[in-house]
Amino acid sequence: MKHALPVTREQDFAAWYQAVISEADMAEESGVRGCMVIRPWGYGIWERMQKLLDDRIKATGHENCYFPLFIPLSYFEKEAEHVDGFAKEMAVVTHHRLIQKDGRLVPDPEAKLEEPLVVRPTSETVIGAGFSRWVQSWRDLPVLINQWANVVRWEMRTRMFLRTAEFLWQEGHTAHATVDEAMDETLKMLEVYRSFAEECIALPVVAGEKPENERFPGAVATYSIEAMMQDGKALQAGTSHFLGTTFSSAQNIRFQNAEGQQELAQTTSWGVSTRMIGGLIMVHGDDDGLRVPPRVAPYQIVVVPMLRDTDEDQAILDYCGELAASLNELDAFREPVRALLDKRPAKAANKRWGWVKKGAPIVIEVGGRDVAGGNVSVIRRDRLYREDGKLDSQIIAKAALVEQAVAMLEDIQTALFADAKARLDGNIDATITDIDALKSHFKGSDKPGWALVQWSKPTGDALDKVVQWLKGEKLTLRNVPLDAAEADGLCVFTGDKAVERVLVGRSY
Amino acid sequence: MKHALPVTREQDFAAWYQAVISEADMAEESGVRGCMVIRPWGYGIWERMQKLLDDRIKATGHENCYFPLFIPLSYFEKEAEHVDGFAKEMAVVTHHRLIQKDGRLVPDPEAKLEEPLVVRPTSETVIGAGFSRWVQSWRDLPVLINQWANVVRWEMRTRMFLRTAEFLWQEGHTAHATVDEAMDETLKMLEVYRSFAEECIALPVVAGEKPENERFPGAVATYSIEAMMQDGKALQAGTSHFLGTTFSSAQNIRFQNAEGQQELAQTTSWGVSTRMIGGLIMVHGDDDGLRVPPRVAPYQIVVVPMLRDTDEDQAILDYCGELAASLNELDAFREPVRALLDKRPAKAANKRWGWVKKGAPIVIEVGGRDVAGGNVSVIRRDRLYREDGKLDSQIIAKAALVEQAVAMLEDIQTALFADAKARLDGNIDATITDIDALKSHFKGSDKPGWALVQWSKPTGDALDKVVQWLKGEKLTLRNVPLDAAEADGLCVFTGDKAVERVLVGRSY
Repeated sequence: MKHALPVTREQDFAAWYQAVISEADMAEESGVRGCMVIRPWGYGIWERMQKLLDDRIKATGHENCYFPLFIPLSYFEKEAEHVDGFAKEMAVVTHHRLIQKDGRLVPDPEAKLEEPLVVRPTSETVIGAGFSRWVQSWRDLPVLINQWANVVRWEMRTRMFLRTAEFLWQEGHTAHATVDEAMDETLKMLEVYRSFAEECIALPVVAGEKPENERFPGAVATYSIEAMMQDGKALQAGTSHFLGTTFSSAQNIRFQNAEGQQELAQTTSWGVSTRMIGGLIMVHGDDDGLRVPPRVAPYQIVVVPMLRDTDEDQAILDYCGELAASLNELDAFREPVRALLDKRPAKAANKRWGWVKKGAPIVIEVGGRDVAGGNVSVIRRDRLYREDGKLDSQIIAKAALVEQAVAMLEDIQTALFADAKARLDGNIDATITDIDALKSHFKGSDKPGWALVQWSKPTGDALDKVVQWLKGEKLTLRNVPLDAAEADGLCVFTGDKAVERVLVGRSY
Repeated sequence: MKHALPVTREQDFAAWYQAVISEADMAEESGVRGCMVIRPWGYGIWERMQKLLDDRIKATGHENCYFPLFIPLSYFEKEAEHVDGFAKEMAVVTHHRLIQKDGRLVPDPEAKLEEPLVVRPTSETVIGAGFSRWVQSWRDLPVLINQWANVVRWEMRTRMFLRTAEFLWQEGHTAHATVDEAMDETLKMLEVYRSFAEECIALPVVAGEKPENERFPGAVATYSIEAMMQDGKALQAGTSHFLGTTFSSAQNIRFQNAEGQQELAQTTSWGVSTRMIGGLIMVHGDDDGLRVPPRVAPYQIVVVPMLRDTDEDQAILDYCGELAASLNELDAFREPVRALLDKRPAKAANKRWGWVKKGAPIVIEVGGRDVAGGNVSVIRRDRLYREDGKLDSQIIAKAALVEQAVAMLEDIQTALFADAKARLDGNIDATITDIDALKSHFKGSDKPGWALVQWSKPTGDALDKVVQWLKGEKLTLRNVPLDAAEADGLCVFTGDKAVERVLVGRSY
């Protein structure tokens, strides 16, 4: 069977991923090392994600604000004193002017900064400095803020949406009077991420705690949501950190408690980024391109008039215009439906396949015969082909389509989630009890998925030994699922009594 | 009469401006040179502006996307070849790693970039490079895009919201096949800005064309909206540029026209920034703090329960909770009303004055007596005091408040605009016909406002002479209003026959 993309998932998953991004006009190389251009269809999906996640962040009591892009080097010096494994690959601004020299532009040596500025890789330090100004008494706590921002991490190998030098994200930062409150916050935001991923992006995830070696530098505990891509690899799609007093020590966030004593605040941070779009592609895409869940689709329904440069065209356009207007008056998922009339001057078949590759949930084609019969031809992107392999384009009455559109969108959202959920659940092997079986599980299959194994939660050197062995097998520890059954056996790595179950898999 | 701010507009307008920002918790110094922290109340206003302007940008056919923060130096070299007066104060990234040296963090000499990267001051070059990839044929035109982004310009003297090294904005960029289409676009977006400023921010503005010396470097024509602050100075609140082929030459944006020939595209760009918040403050603020027009207020109505740590408190809270819920079910300006129940543990009077200083349009206080009587006490921020100088807090029935709330919000929006519009119109002197009168007009008054004078539109050296004279008087040319009457006299500067009327004033 022929498909719309030049390469299938089976043939070359990595090449397929790039093909989806390119054929769906989601993003492209920018000519700037490690940075991508996010084109309107990709950015439109991000805007939808932003809106839905932002609503949830605000509904849980957080307010948005904005901190500087640049962070003075001295802030990182303070951080480095408190944080082991502090990352150093960052973009550094050293000059503030260009001059012309021998016909070229160069940084002006006269305009060298006294203190270099770092382009934020994340904002714990500069936001912590803000908290230290805002917080004096227990009455000022909790502080619950979030910002939507661009951040830069100098990555050696980049991949669109998954790992880019600059990326877009939200970073929440909070300060609390007690460990309990800060832990509640950390887990609350993990749950916000889980429900957002599953309900809005139809992305089933496993929420759990990261093992010690995968913690954010400086964190006391790191939690994540992990999604399974169609090649069986894991993608960390969001993290929530309990930071204890690491950053409040470094940035001096102190408050007077109700007893009149000075205490360090307990802080948290949590983030979700444009990486989520990479997850959406690798979970929902197929060999014809992207499939966007309706809740995050920039356009949920696209109406394509089949014009022939004849007198009939105007009647078709009018008919399509009315249809799009009727659809836009509907509400789905408690928001207005987003329907587009695609009037661009191009062949209808090209437009159809363009929207298929972009993954618009419903594509409606209207030709002269449809207008005459009061009908439309409907393609559902989640079930593109009939059993005989032909495109499943169904003719139904226009009025019936308007009547069914909302239910159809809800059904597509549900179907995409159900598919992905079945794949996730079906590809976690929880039966492996020894290290040889673990090894052969991942050696023996192209798409081995993940293994959920019991372990003794080793720390320090003992953990390092496990991590090194896994590395040799190209495996990583993902997280300890919050909803996993209690341990009742032996550690698959050490043979000691197990204390919990941890997910093992390949990862992005 | 005592006011909530420590300084009045009359006493010291600049100090008053800073006091509003500080007392309303809108923004603060960040500790990073020239960069501010935008706190939730300030950022909430920006989010409201974003939403309302973004709707208008999309409604006029533009799509959002995202281009890189970093622009390679070579792009600016190409620009410098095409653009006179190209600005050079920019933040330059030269290294991509930090290392520890003698106990300090320093940029790693081993990690010096081969080609320095500039932090975008604006994105014509990098977006132009994108357009050159996207545009091959006339069928690919127009390209109509916009991005919401942070940009950096190394300013020597900074002032919160008005001029900061980093600021937030939207920048629209478009490419067209013909000069006419590009000019239509330039003026269309100017009109979008005008209607957005006037309808949403209640900010009356004068839309017009900037004189040659005030053009964006590389532009063929620059248009602006100019707002009048309460000290009579002008604030340029938004600009729209027709760029001709300047950037399409530099970035090679070519298309094959319908006749099969290669042509350079005609481009435009247009932007509005967080500067608009500075304008909002200086137009609507008073000696008690900010007054936020309801359409851009993060909270339009704030309900303050007057608690006394007694058994009555719960009944007051319940009553307030119901009230806030009823208000939030209403729609004003075709959006849900934004009402907040302020439950923070602080004295009611402090909370009241806090919201007055923040400029929430309506503040409602509820005490035990109000609950007993089924009433609320209402303060309208746009008319805070009675004629006798006392706070104008009116007791009305709760049900009546809910019934009147939407009309009250609409009335406040209208009243703030009407006040500002009367001030703008009343402070433009169109009667000045000679240069001595112009000079004495601005020397003779503390708040001279603007002068609308006839001029001969000199260019080159002749214009420079005018500009230098104005500079000596601390004056600038603002714009040539689109709706000004035709010239019918002599140029106030040169004595030649006038061709149009231009606004002159002090400015930010």
